[in-house]
Amino acid sequence: MNSDTPQTSDRELVLTRLIDAPPELVYRAWTEPEILKQWFAPAPWSTPHAELDVRPGGSNLVVMRDPDGNDYPNRGVYLEVLPGRRLVITDAYISAWEPSERPFMTLFLDFGPAGGKARYTARAVHWNAETRADHERMGFHEGWGKCADQLADVLAKLQNAQQKA
Amino acid sequence: MNSDTPQTSDRELVLTRLIDAPPELVYRAWTEPEILKQWFAPAPWSTPHAELDVRPGGSNLVVMRDPDGNDYPNRGVYLEVLPGRRLVITDAYISAWEPSERPFMTLFLDFGPAGGKARYTARAVHWNAETRADHERMGFHEGWGKCADQLADVLAKLQNAQQKA
Repeated sequence: MNSDTPQTSDRELVLTRLIDAPPELVYRAWTEPEILKQWFAPAPWSTPHAELDVRPGGSNLVVMRDPDGNDYPNRGVYLEVLPGRRLVITDAYISAWEPSERPFMTLFLDFGPAGGKARYTARAVHWNAETRADHERMGFHEGWGKCADQLADVLAKLQNAQQKA
Repeated sequence: MNSDTPQTSDRELVLTRLIDAPPELVYRAWTEPEILKQWFAPAPWSTPHAELDVRPGGSNLVVMRDPDGNDYPNRGVYLEVLPGRRLVITDAYISAWEPSERPFMTLFLDFGPAGGKARYTARAVHWNAETRADHERMGFHEGWGKCADQLADVLAKLQNAQQKA
């Protein structure tokens, strides 16, 4: 926790994971659509579409697809962008600065160096404890854990392919 | 309405007023604490304290005081700052990017030139129609109308004093 980290423990959910990849590569997995689409939704869901305008005030649109073919668009706005290190994204806005239908969470993504690996931390901060509890019941830990596994697998394959090239 | 203006009519409240002052001066009345404290709260309320870190991601703290001496602090964050022209402020965050207890509104303030005067427009956009209705019942139109009168008076006196100096 650094001084930029809000103290909101009763309103937040956290996933943290050591990933065997440079922090800059984990950051790219969040900011380059072609990488993000490979891991973002927990299988058997998929991510057929992603638009990522990665800059403060830029919008994103990520479409997840369930096994029956139904699409679920997710929209948000980047609040803070520190290349290679940190992203802060909210779904309270769908563009700068059009309020969404429901402000659900602010997502703090940190990509810290940790002895040649990346300390990947995803903190979902909600506006109240009830929404946090809803999110936990919706399966935050299982879903984000599975996606972190997928993320690590994609980055391992990417690094393997680069070493062979 | 320009292309940057969200289409949120069922969730917004608007005050617009022609003020006999340059747009830049109306902007200063919103961004300089010593001017803001003179008009921000509808009399007999007052504004004893204001801290305004006017930049994207900067925080503000404005304290209003009722006639019995009770203080009401209001916190927010600047989302967009176009000097002399536009401010976008939200109370969904109390600092960059700590969520507040309750996201109530996003405030779009425009200071447009209009034939030597300023077209001052304050649009309060809420996250849903219910919150908009609450805000209207709380007296948005009367309160913001009275404050706009106070703002115009303060700027008239300021311009008078400058002409005499």
